[in-house]
Amino acid sequence: MTFGSDNHAGMAPEVLAALGEANVGHASGYGDDAWTERAEARLHDAFGDAAFALCLTGTGTNVVALSLALRGWESVLAAKGAHIDLDEAGAPEHITGSKIETIATPDGRLTPELLEGALRSREQHHVVQRVVSITQSTECGTAYTPAAVQAIADWAHAHDMLLHVDGARLCNAAVFNGCGLGEVAPGADIISFGLTKNGAMGAEVVVARNPALRGPIQNARKQATQLQSKMRFVAAQVDALLTDERWRLHAANANTLAARLAAGIGDLPGVSIEYPVEANAVFAVLPADRIQALAEQHRFYIWDAPRNVARLMTAWDTTSSDVDALIADIASA
Amino acid sequence: MTFGSDNHAGMAPEVLAALGEANVGHASGYGDDAWTERAEARLHDAFGDAAFALCLTGTGTNVVALSLALRGWESVLAAKGAHIDLDEAGAPEHITGSKIETIATPDGRLTPELLEGALRSREQHHVVQRVVSITQSTECGTAYTPAAVQAIADWAHAHDMLLHVDGARLCNAAVFNGCGLGEVAPGADIISFGLTKNGAMGAEVVVARNPALRGPIQNARKQATQLQSKMRFVAAQVDALLTDERWRLHAANANTLAARLAAGIGDLPGVSIEYPVEANAVFAVLPADRIQALAEQHRFYIWDAPRNVARLMTAWDTTSSDVDALIADIASA
Amino acid sequence: MTFGSDNHAGMAPEVLAALGEANVGHASGYGDDAWTERAEARLHDAFGDAAFALCLTGTGTNVVALSLALRGWESVLAAKGAHIDLDEAGAPEHITGSKIETIATPDGRLTPELLEGALRSREQHHVVQRVVSITQSTECGTAYTPAAVQAIADWAHAHDMLLHVDGARLCNAAVFNGCGLGEVAPGADIISFGLTKNGAMGAEVVVARNPALRGPIQNARKQATQLQSKMRFVAAQVDALLTDERWRLHAANANTLAARLAAGIGDLPGVSIEYPVEANAVFAVLPADRIQALAEQHRFYIWDAPRNVARLMTAWDTTSSDVDALIADIASA
Amino acid sequence: MTFGSDNHAGMAPEVLAALGEANVGHASGYGDDAWTERAEARLHDAFGDAAFALCLTGTGTNVVALSLALRGWESVLAAKGAHIDLDEAGAPEHITGSKIETIATPDGRLTPELLEGALRSREQHHVVQRVVSITQSTECGTAYTPAAVQAIADWAHAHDMLLHVDGARLCNAAVFNGCGLGEVAPGADIISFGLTKNGAMGAEVVVARNPALRGPIQNARKQATQLQSKMRFVAAQVDALLTDERWRLHAANANTLAARLAAGIGDLPGVSIEYPVEANAVFAVLPADRIQALAEQHRFYIWDAPRNVARLMTAWDTTSSDVDALIADIASA
Repeated sequence: MTFGSDNHAGMAPEVLAALGEANVGHASGYGDDAWTERAEARLHDAFGDAAFALCLTGTGTNVVALSLALRGWESVLAAKGAHIDLDEAGAPEHITGSKIETIATPDGRLTPELLEGALRSREQHHVVQRVVSITQSTECGTAYTPAAVQAIADWAHAHDMLLHVDGARLCNAAVFNGCGLGEVAPGADIISFGLTKNGAMGAEVVVARNPALRGPIQNARKQATQLQSKMRFVAAQVDALLTDERWRLHAANANTLAARLAAGIGDLPGVSIEYPVEANAVFAVLPADRIQALAEQHRFYIWDAPRNVARLMTAWDTTSSDVDALIADIASA
Repeated sequence: MTFGSDNHAGMAPEVLAALGEANVGHASGYGDDAWTERAEARLHDAFGDAAFALCLTGTGTNVVALSLALRGWESVLAAKGAHIDLDEAGAPEHITGSKIETIATPDGRLTPELLEGALRSREQHHVVQRVVSITQSTECGTAYTPAAVQAIADWAHAHDMLLHVDGARLCNAAVFNGCGLGEVAPGADIISFGLTKNGAMGAEVVVARNPALRGPIQNARKQATQLQSKMRFVAAQVDALLTDERWRLHAANANTLAARLAAGIGDLPGVSIEYPVEANAVFAVLPADRIQALAEQHRFYIWDAPRNVARLMTAWDTTSSDVDALIADIASA
Repeated sequence: MTFGSDNHAGMAPEVLAALGEANVGHASGYGDDAWTERAEARLHDAFGDAAFALCLTGTGTNVVALSLALRGWESVLAAKGAHIDLDEAGAPEHITGSKIETIATPDGRLTPELLEGALRSREQHHVVQRVVSITQSTECGTAYTPAAVQAIADWAHAHDMLLHVDGARLCNAAVFNGCGLGEVAPGADIISFGLTKNGAMGAEVVVARNPALRGPIQNARKQATQLQSKMRFVAAQVDALLTDERWRLHAANANTLAARLAAGIGDLPGVSIEYPVEANAVFAVLPADRIQALAEQHRFYIWDAPRNVARLMTAWDTTSSDVDALIADIASA
Repeated sequence: MTFGSDNHAGMAPEVLAALGEANVGHASGYGDDAWTERAEARLHDAFGDAAFALCLTGTGTNVVALSLALRGWESVLAAKGAHIDLDEAGAPEHITGSKIETIATPDGRLTPELLEGALRSREQHHVVQRVVSITQSTECGTAYTPAAVQAIADWAHAHDMLLHVDGARLCNAAVFNGCGLGEVAPGADIISFGLTKNGAMGAEVVVARNPALRGPIQNARKQATQLQSKMRFVAAQVDALLTDERWRLHAANANTLAARLAAGIGDLPGVSIEYPVEANAVFAVLPADRIQALAEQHRFYIWDAPRNVARLMTAWDTTSSDVDALIADIASA
């Protein structure tokens, strides 16, 4: 195993099995099939009343979600370093036609206070600030409490804005908060719900809760190139991971082992942990003279080379012995 | 089996097997893996020197391909009814920012003569006509000969244009022409090569032949939301279908059975075939009093309701008994 | 004078005078000035209750108008050859992100019947047909009656669509119909109202009648690059031409002289008039052996070279002696 | 007079006169006229070999310039607070489809060192950083020396980037540096050259110096809605202000009076100047108890309300008595 990314892991066994089980004869394409129906029923159980659109990539899911909420002259407020800002090759701006404005945060988490500082007058020379986008759990490995999400939602709604939650790791946030998928982002108008990092091959979902955003969800998905013809195979993945909350086992494993890792290295000489470890990522300063060798051996990313910060990610299939081996290697002088 | 679409079929057995074989431990994401390397080697064998980008949907593949060739003020010339014009929810215009101009054709095939009739002066009020896009095989179930493609490529290049080939069914065209994938679209600058309709779960490839278009292929793919993190599973599909030209068996089955179907119904009373059957689609006028019932029974689309035209598609897994049953049902008064 | 275009004419004297009168000291920019207030009051008098945005170019005005009505996955239905389709370098598609679908017409005029033939199902692969755009008066020099516009508006609204009117020559249509600016496009949700061809230097107006489209009119204008800082000079032009319906004199002159021209040449040997002459354009087949020389002498465009069709346009400043001279030259064997 | 903006001023007398002189009879539209030819000759004299496109608004000019330099997946690096980032309603992102990345500066000026800190790897998840955009003179009223611009150009070119200069106030920068328009932005690949703030009614120019960017300049202008039909009136403004370097008198007046203003208030109690006063803007902290009344009386903007910072702008028509009156009012306790 590696500590490079939770998407370095493969498919969970039940996902591969589900693909095989779905591979029977002909089925209508583009979502008009029994697997999609079942997946949407499970999504409804998890998230409550909403419109759902199964998608293929995290970037695509964010683009579809944002395009439902934005007109061209409107903007998104997001944390500096958010995936939509830094790691999507400009897709959100390019496809939605809207600007992203970023706000520096201490640990990946926005707050009403930080948002307040970025407010601008709604005059014609400015973009109209319309969407607040937060990541749950964040790119820093922290997670919002439901109360913190609700506070941002309330702030957004009070300012005539909408709340988007990038939930590529929503499962990890739900495990951290000990709650269900439907409770981990209260007040959110629209959610990008990811399962790929949770053991799917490639399955993400746009969850449009706000009734005003639901209508064109299928059109927006198709136009963003996220509609796959043999949809049953995407739906089967969603179904497999939502059945009996299997997503929770996967996320719990990743979260638990990240905590174990942080605990195991946090007090080592020359090591310090950057952010609270609340999901499945540990950002740690490692000894300058060995970080490069460790990175090659355990295949993790050096996030901030000048400061010797490593990003160590656990996945659904990471084992405690993987973690203990990494701890031992970091500890060995 | 149904006759609704070649994407109603599932995965070919070797594709499902390949997914399972690729599901071993961790691998780097986004194409930095051994499966992608192998898939690209096979693509190189098939298409010769080119840049390749594995993608997820046909629409996405076309968008990536076109975005490499177009600036905002340039346009695409395509056959009326082409997939990029009619069935992609405006994604090409929306994401490339460029106009699509359509030309009526008798059977889905463009010719230099038809293109000549659509030429416009390159003055500042007009879009600059830059790309000719053809579909090989076409949405009408016809296919271009390599010579016909080369003639269009020559015309395009002589007019300072580029040739894009939408090859969602390139395999069927190669079988029709008895040639390889690299010979079925000679002169093409860029190809959307599809395998989903050939037995993949969801795997398409942008093939950038023209060296001037290759540079930003990965950026364009990422921005069009077509880059999947666990790329090895897309690559494994491509590898499986290119190994020993398995694509040829699948396409040959579909083409052969479409021909068998056309032969079986062409002379029936009240039936007439619309276009030459050169790939895996039969467009047929069926008896007005029974087309609806037949469509429900065999799950095919009524393409042109006023004229009682049905689209009957065969797939990699259609069997001769499926076809014979359909023939019998159409024949039974 | 030339017969090349109504935009070959300069400014009407009252427009130039108004620019000079507005050139006094400092004024706030971007529309927060007394001239804009007065122009908007006159526009309100002419069009009734609506939101107005003064713009700079016809293309820009159409883009602003359409962007208020469209989401990315929606489309516009327009006559083939409409300015938004043919003569705006793809700006509408590029900036709104939406597709334009065209319908062939006999004389530039759409009808409910023609529109009906272009209707498509609203399923996810298709763009959602949202806006019908007509040109009043048309690119062929014909004009709709108010009843004809109302019929299209009714059809559009019955199909959950909106009606946009490209009124670059709305004044000419109003003169033809003997009505006011507010009556010449009944049922229209949004109008591009042009004054440049009527004697302005460069002044156009987005008229958003439908209350649902008004909100972001200023944002859409700014984002489409149509907001000029020294707005008072645009407003002064609008004010000058709306005062005492001076626009009507200009349009009446142009219309009258186009009719005089058509009457003068219509029965000449080798000449035939293409469309009813209802505004300020005469499309005429001219003798093949002299059309080129005539075009050079009178500076008009040969619209359709193979068929020897000339476009002869009159303007606010065309004189009857200009017209008579052209008639005489065409008549002289 | 006001101190609100240099675009609160009207037209310089020679500009109004030029409009009148150009208003003679018919002329071909869209730039095919003698005035445009003359304006372009003068631009060539001023800027040397380049392609020119006359435009209507500053935002439009920036959009045209950037669209020539960018593909969708590429980005622009600009100073935080740059006009393209803050005051163009998202037009650059919306129309070019490209991301703008901002860098905090002490005084509106970027440097190679600041740019270096914003460099990112060119991997597929990131936008490709392609254009550096600087404002000359800046939004803070500072100006780059030619050597400073050249250093940025060299840095950009060494990193496979291009340099864009937003020269809405290029004339003021040329006066500050005591050089010509062609020398004030050395190494720039493309310049947005503004004359509106210099006494035009509304006239800006895209100056494409880099030969690789020149080809589609007219197409890009038309698509960005910046092509006016009666172009002679835009050209006449450019011609008037370039004749005998009249622009220099206007900019010199504005710069000189800004310096006089800064000198007159800089040492007053409770007043401090924010940035070096090098062009025609003075940013000054004013006494908290009187800033509001002064702003109403002299019509200037309070730029930073919490800190009581006023933006005081001089224009081509500001007089020394205007300035002295403002100084006196600020000085009067």
